[in-house]
Amino acid sequence: MATPSLLILAGDGIGPEVMAEVKKIIGWMGTKRGIHFDVSDGLVGGCSYDAHGTPLTDETMARAQGVDAVLLGAVGGPKYDALDFSVKPERGLLRLRKEMDLYSNLRPAQCFDALADFSSLKKEVVAGLDIMIVRELTSGVYFGEPRGIFTEGNERVGINTQRYTESEIARVARSAFELARKRGNKVCSMEKANVMESGILWRQVVQEIHDKEYPDVELSHMYADAGAMQLTRWPKQFDVIVTDNLFGDLLSDLAAMLTGSLGMLPSASLGAPMANGRPKALYEPVHGSAPDIAGQGKANPIACILSFAMALRYSFGLGEEATRVEKAVEKVLADGVRTADLMGPAGGTPVTTTQMGDAVLAAL
Amino acid sequence: MATPSLLILAGDGIGPEVMAEVKKIIGWMGTKRGIHFDVSDGLVGGCSYDAHGTPLTDETMARAQGVDAVLLGAVGGPKYDALDFSVKPERGLLRLRKEMDLYSNLRPAQCFDALADFSSLKKEVVAGLDIMIVRELTSGVYFGEPRGIFTEGNERVGINTQRYTESEIARVARSAFELARKRGNKVCSMEKANVMESGILWRQVVQEIHDKEYPDVELSHMYADAGAMQLTRWPKQFDVIVTDNLFGDLLSDLAAMLTGSLGMLPSASLGAPMANGRPKALYEPVHGSAPDIAGQGKANPIACILSFAMALRYSFGLGEEATRVEKAVEKVLADGVRTADLMGPAGGTPVTTTQMGDAVLAAL
Ligand SMILES: CC(C)[C@H](C(=O)O)[C@@H](O)C(=O)O
Ligand SMILES: CC(C)[C@H](C(=O)O)[C@@H](O)C(=O)O
Repeated sequence: MATPSLLILAGDGIGPEVMAEVKKIIGWMGTKRGIHFDVSDGLVGGCSYDAHGTPLTDETMARAQGVDAVLLGAVGGPKYDALDFSVKPERGLLRLRKEMDLYSNLRPAQCFDALADFSSLKKEVVAGLDIMIVRELTSGVYFGEPRGIFTEGNERVGINTQRYTESEIARVARSAFELARKRGNKVCSMEKANVMESGILWRQVVQEIHDKEYPDVELSHMYADAGAMQLTRWPKQFDVIVTDNLFGDLLSDLAAMLTGSLGMLPSASLGAPMANGRPKALYEPVHGSAPDIAGQGKANPIACILSFAMALRYSFGLGEEATRVEKAVEKVLADGVRTADLMGPAGGTPVTTTQMGDAVLAAL
Repeated sequence: MATPSLLILAGDGIGPEVMAEVKKIIGWMGTKRGIHFDVSDGLVGGCSYDAHGTPLTDETMARAQGVDAVLLGAVGGPKYDALDFSVKPERGLLRLRKEMDLYSNLRPAQCFDALADFSSLKKEVVAGLDIMIVRELTSGVYFGEPRGIFTEGNERVGINTQRYTESEIARVARSAFELARKRGNKVCSMEKANVMESGILWRQVVQEIHDKEYPDVELSHMYADAGAMQLTRWPKQFDVIVTDNLFGDLLSDLAAMLTGSLGMLPSASLGAPMANGRPKALYEPVHGSAPDIAGQGKANPIACILSFAMALRYSFGLGEEATRVEKAVEKVLADGVRTADLMGPAGGTPVTTTQMGDAVLAAL
């Protein structure tokens, strides 16, 4: 097989800083483990708008379609707040998700032992927490038509459309069931079937796929509002959660915050297999571009490093190498190495973004 | 003025049990404080379906329109899960909200001192918490058209429509600003303006109403996913939160769970002033019908009692009487009186639903 290719889109804010640390890990994989990647860079988000007047050029889009995996940092910032909706930084990210058809967004919410004290939740509620949120990423209210701001009579009306087809629901459900089989074998599906017809269809299709193809997996259904409650009350009751694009946006951020490890959490967005058998894939940290701390060496690169670990596992079948990176991160945390966001009451050794990257390298 | 009228719709599950305790308080108001109500009862939800084949009859709807305030218990239960969408218990509640045009849903999330230990969050994060979520209740994806499950090609498609007009946003924003002026003078508005045009309009209109009519109130905007995070991380940063119907559904349940006092939290749903100057109004506990514990004397009547206190304050201008009821509840809690849901590690005196109602009466 040819050297696997990676497109790096560092993006805005702290994106470039955290990505610089990932590049060190990629380099280490080549020199120390003989695992080489063909790495290229590109622009997405505000920086692409600044250079080209669009948050993602057709050329970069085409390159993303052609590589084995995309690594993304973060997009957005107050500088771009006044831009028209169609050229906002977020549109670059949404275009990548949509055109690469990355329908299955995996967001692990994991509480790192060394950081259990750091959550706003009680230690016993979050210690050892390990849930996986599977969020549908290419449909729903994010992309449904009609949409826009219209004039009706003498006032404005804002419209968006929540829309799910049976096959869109079926494929993300399968992805959740597959993952569950490799974990705790439990899936909880969340919607508002008591209020929304799209939620009724969601529930039906998830149940049908379960009954026909995954009867061995334990399946439950929950209304999304109750889901938000239960995630807050006792998150360890969950293993895999599958939900739609919008509910997934809120619930995965909530779950991430529970762990107290927001700067720590990676994500994978996966699509259908390509000709070489690898899924279309984009990996990015769950955190945003954090413009308030950009350029100050304060950002925590771990979420981005762990996103690369997810790439090793899900795109390149290198689960052992992924675990190696994850263990190195755990060691660094256990040693008390802390970027600013991880400085809790218990203290630790304060480090910069670069020093954190170096610490992970040393632990490797 | 004529004796104020109350329509009591106790509903399903634990609804009738908790409402029985409220009736004791209403009785006490008459005999001890000379404040009389003209009380009548009606059916809503599953019990109405059982009796009449519909979750709300036109006759009950008309009575709700005619009274000064409606008190509702809870609706729904597994018995009704297989019913067609159009006759599900929830449709009764949604019809009341829509036809009475109760656009402003006030959901206080308050942490009771005596229960601060009871939250899954750390005590310092929730002790003293007192936020007010103002949720738009008559529009958005709950009511937007088109909606339904359709066939397209050879598959099913589920569709709902998120739709907000300028005036719908303006009136609930005003309601939030008015409340803020009586509290901490701060409003945070939540939407997904980075992804949804309806969110862009929401943000614009809230800002316009602020600038024109409430420049003295501090206003901020937050994406709803960040809102879920911030509510979990440090909820005390908020005073009043204003948001749409669907986000409000999730965020208010989340906020309620933070306090550890789910069985404690009331809500008020308010509309435009009637001819007598009182707003159209419905009061209900935030908790659901809890079919698993119904009929066992385990339900906590406090949320429903506090909903009646909100009625005293918002419908009848009896703020002092409302405070009297609230103080009685606080005293009972401080005395360690506990229904099953409030039995934490710290223990307390276990009581039934009826005993809790009696304890509040005694404290009054
Ligand atoms: C940046 C934004 C468009 C995005 C989303 O809403 O999906 C983000 O919140 C996320 O969760 O990845
Ligand atoms: C019962 C249901 C229809 C309702 C809603 O979704 O609004 C409930 O969750 C609530 O928050 O009052």
